[in-house]
Amino acid sequence: MQSDTTARLLITCPDRPGIVAAVSNFLFNHGANITALDQHSTDPEGGTFFMRLEFQTPHLDVPRGVLESTFAERVAARFEMDWRISYAADLKKVAVLVSRYDHALNELLWRHANGELPCELTQVVSNHPDLRGEVERFGIPYHHVPVSKETKEQAEAEMLRLLEGCDLLVLARYMQILSPGFVGRYPNRIINIHHSFLPAFVGANPYKQAYERGVKLIGATAHYVTEALDEGPIIEQDVARVSHRNDVAELVRLGRDLERTVLARAVQWHLEDRVIVHGNKTVVFA
Amino acid sequence: MQSDTTARLLITCPDRPGIVAAVSNFLFNHGANITALDQHSTDPEGGTFFMRLEFQTPHLDVPRGVLESTFAERVAARFEMDWRISYAADLKKVAVLVSRYDHALNELLWRHANGELPCELTQVVSNHPDLRGEVERFGIPYHHVPVSKETKEQAEAEMLRLLEGCDLLVLARYMQILSPGFVGRYPNRIINIHHSFLPAFVGANPYKQAYERGVKLIGATAHYVTEALDEGPIIEQDVARVSHRNDVAELVRLGRDLERTVLARAVQWHLEDRVIVHGNKTVVFA
Amino acid sequence: MQSDTTARLLITCPDRPGIVAAVSNFLFNHGANITALDQHSTDPEGGTFFMRLEFQTPHLDVPRGVLESTFAERVAARFEMDWRISYAADLKKVAVLVSRYDHALNELLWRHANGELPCELTQVVSNHPDLRGEVERFGIPYHHVPVSKETKEQAEAEMLRLLEGCDLLVLARYMQILSPGFVGRYPNRIINIHHSFLPAFVGANPYKQAYERGVKLIGATAHYVTEALDEGPIIEQDVARVSHRNDVAELVRLGRDLERTVLARAVQWHLEDRVIVHGNKTVVFA
Amino acid sequence: MQSDTTARLLITCPDRPGIVAAVSNFLFNHGANITALDQHSTDPEGGTFFMRLEFQTPHLDVPRGVLESTFAERVAARFEMDWRISYAADLKKVAVLVSRYDHALNELLWRHANGELPCELTQVVSNHPDLRGEVERFGIPYHHVPVSKETKEQAEAEMLRLLEGCDLLVLARYMQILSPGFVGRYPNRIINIHHSFLPAFVGANPYKQAYERGVKLIGATAHYVTEALDEGPIIEQDVARVSHRNDVAELVRLGRDLERTVLARAVQWHLEDRVIVHGNKTVVFA
Repeated sequence: MQSDTTARLLITCPDRPGIVAAVSNFLFNHGANITALDQHSTDPEGGTFFMRLEFQTPHLDVPRGVLESTFAERVAARFEMDWRISYAADLKKVAVLVSRYDHALNELLWRHANGELPCELTQVVSNHPDLRGEVERFGIPYHHVPVSKETKEQAEAEMLRLLEGCDLLVLARYMQILSPGFVGRYPNRIINIHHSFLPAFVGANPYKQAYERGVKLIGATAHYVTEALDEGPIIEQDVARVSHRNDVAELVRLGRDLERTVLARAVQWHLEDRVIVHGNKTVVFA
Repeated sequence: MQSDTTARLLITCPDRPGIVAAVSNFLFNHGANITALDQHSTDPEGGTFFMRLEFQTPHLDVPRGVLESTFAERVAARFEMDWRISYAADLKKVAVLVSRYDHALNELLWRHANGELPCELTQVVSNHPDLRGEVERFGIPYHHVPVSKETKEQAEAEMLRLLEGCDLLVLARYMQILSPGFVGRYPNRIINIHHSFLPAFVGANPYKQAYERGVKLIGATAHYVTEALDEGPIIEQDVARVSHRNDVAELVRLGRDLERTVLARAVQWHLEDRVIVHGNKTVVFA
Repeated sequence: MQSDTTARLLITCPDRPGIVAAVSNFLFNHGANITALDQHSTDPEGGTFFMRLEFQTPHLDVPRGVLESTFAERVAARFEMDWRISYAADLKKVAVLVSRYDHALNELLWRHANGELPCELTQVVSNHPDLRGEVERFGIPYHHVPVSKETKEQAEAEMLRLLEGCDLLVLARYMQILSPGFVGRYPNRIINIHHSFLPAFVGANPYKQAYERGVKLIGATAHYVTEALDEGPIIEQDVARVSHRNDVAELVRLGRDLERTVLARAVQWHLEDRVIVHGNKTVVFA
Repeated sequence: MQSDTTARLLITCPDRPGIVAAVSNFLFNHGANITALDQHSTDPEGGTFFMRLEFQTPHLDVPRGVLESTFAERVAARFEMDWRISYAADLKKVAVLVSRYDHALNELLWRHANGELPCELTQVVSNHPDLRGEVERFGIPYHHVPVSKETKEQAEAEMLRLLEGCDLLVLARYMQILSPGFVGRYPNRIINIHHSFLPAFVGANPYKQAYERGVKLIGATAHYVTEALDEGPIIEQDVARVSHRNDVAELVRLGRDLERTVLARAVQWHLEDRVIVHGNKTVVFA
């Protein structure tokens, strides 16, 4: 039901009475029609209040900028809110980082082409040249930025230059570890897909680890990237059943399907402003 | 996070601007603290608005009765609302109807004893005497009301007498079809578990039907009972994987686990006032 | 663990003692090494016996043709077997029929390119020209055969000509009903994906039907095509959870993911000779 | 399709040609009718061969003891087999160890009473007196053996005395760590339910750990107990979806359902001789 006139307001603040009334009044009085509202409070006593609102903007009585500055002054300040408004018409700029595996990338490209991912896909950046054809046939620029131990610093500098202006980076099986400095530029704006059910099997070769442990389900985890490897806030996870019949190669193959789905869901939810990060966890509004 | 001071307001009305503001203001102004809010709107143009609010009552500035009559007058009338407020402290009175299978009944008894089903389990009524022991050991009265073709009318009259004052009837594999007259007394207040993924396999012996069709998943469906057999509003469904190895007896066995879970979830959601019936469908707030 | 030297033997016959011994002896005595064996018997008394064996052929003491004719004479005849041997090295020839939706087709193309579908993809036939580019970039021929009420007969004749020599036809959301005559040419060799959890919602617009019934799960079903629409033997099914928030367009979108997965699994299992059709049901060996 | 005349043969041995032929010939020649056969081989070159056979014994031409000794001599020795035959008519003797939580215990008691767990439930042993009533109403003896740091050794001695002759111990949320000496008495014959998706969240309070990590799925794992805590061979796992709305108490509640199901499945499979332990992993035949 999203349309170009949809806006979304995300709020995190200390919980106390009157927040919903204050926010909904404010919007109503300015001609915004609330079309979806979801709220979550942690423990009522001294807890945290989270809210996601969708509202329609055609009858706003003030320009966006004024709406926001007035909201900041009259509502947000009073309740000590951490908040943001985004507008569906302002497509987020997204870059995908990838190495050689094409499955997660292809899934994103296909979903984007089918209108499932409301964003502008500005570019794909890869440390390998292999997937250029796949990407360019969708009319999306492909940048090859090789990375080696020695050139990592320059490579990241080059990437930062290319990624200038991006709202979100998606690591679709990008096999390089980004430096803390790089990650720090995109707080809660880099989504990675890890090919295990975190926190099980952090680090390299999770399918091999899973095979050796003899688990009966394998998983995939989409999370925001932080400085601590594989420890950022989890957005989405899913699992698939495996058995003694599946060797590592088959776990890899079955896992690909999970990775595609889980990453695509996480990216979609981020783009629809459904995710609030709080500490090292996420609130994901349905 | 539910406590004895929790109240819930369910609203259905024609969608138009200002509803959230009006309701949240009203509650705030009367000292009610909103602790959860979930809203759903069908197609924005001329659609229907659904909302579920949880609020805390300790600081209400008026008695419940006054709160409700004032709400009716000042808010509900203006927006043509179909609404109700319920209070967690007023436990719903629930009766379970059962025949000979004990699995769904036992699940409800066990969950109730474990505090998972916030209700008063007033009685179990059965057309067979078999399960008396199971029920009475939980301290719950068991009424045996035999039903035959000839005695159906008197049996239902007897049951209506016993069930006087009940808020909800749960058919935990009750193998008699209730008459339209009986059903009409409890609109959207009788929950049945059907042992198939409706609308597949309506009627008798759904597992046999499933076996013969060769499906790869079996299901169970919890729904409100209406005059049209197996066609009432669906509350919850789930499925389990089966294979060519499973004969009808095994489908029955695997299905039992589904029936237990699906019915228990539906009953819990009803008791927590999460379900709004609209036409022949349900809105189920998470 | 499949390799070019893998062969598979599928057997259906009346159940009686000695079948496994006879078959395994025969293979062992001819230098075939059994590397997988799965057996299923319906009701032991007078039931049916199904078996799938994988064996390795490098040390066969006779040519394939002799192996097969000897097996027919010495083993199959004695046990009244319906049987076939296929060789992994002889890739099955597969054609995909499609209309305008690209999701199921793309999934098959991508999996084929990734080595997940062991077959020769000989061609794609469509009643629309739209997807030519998608297909030809994989180096696979695309044939546009328009179909209208008036031209259906000629169109099918043209298709039969094009499909000459194909072992399997996959209907990847092909929106035309094939005539009984056409279907009769490919018994248990046409796989269709139906966008519902059959037998619920046969016929047109199953997502609309699902929306109107208010189900809480939607499904997809891959089945062999028979003369009776949507009633052929089911190979695979799966479901996804939906809610009151999802309108028909969203069910369609969520369903696409199911259709892709379920069809791909069914095709893979067929290609790996895991499926035996018996009556209107399937035995699918893991 | 199990009946009192069913026997099961489990085999592990180095893989080489001729095993299936040798075993099936042997059984056929002695009048045993094979009614199910499932085989698994790890990497064909120098791998391990696993097989589970079900056969019917009414027409055996020799007594069981002779069948077994002949098999050992003529077949097992030749192929260096690790093997065992068990007879469905010889019900395994099972004891359940439990502390205070009743959910996993109740599930086992209910399934046993419903004929889903083919075993003799000889007793329940607990370090608490609480669940005596629950158990004794099923006619099963309840032994209270308190355990403290100081008395652990005597307590275990007392338990070993009580458990004399048991084939399987099931830890249905038994909150004491068994000593290596105790565990060593029951190799691959103690099944534990761990309330997490192992190897994530080993040790104490896994639901609290899961809550703090912010996972989107919680799990349960049934495994054989070894000296290394939570590291024994995994038999079965399953997961359930959770969200930011679920606090630790709700994870515990949702997890209970998983624990019940996962433990019951693992116990059933063990009782049906479907599980072969190999190294620290299991082969579970469907």
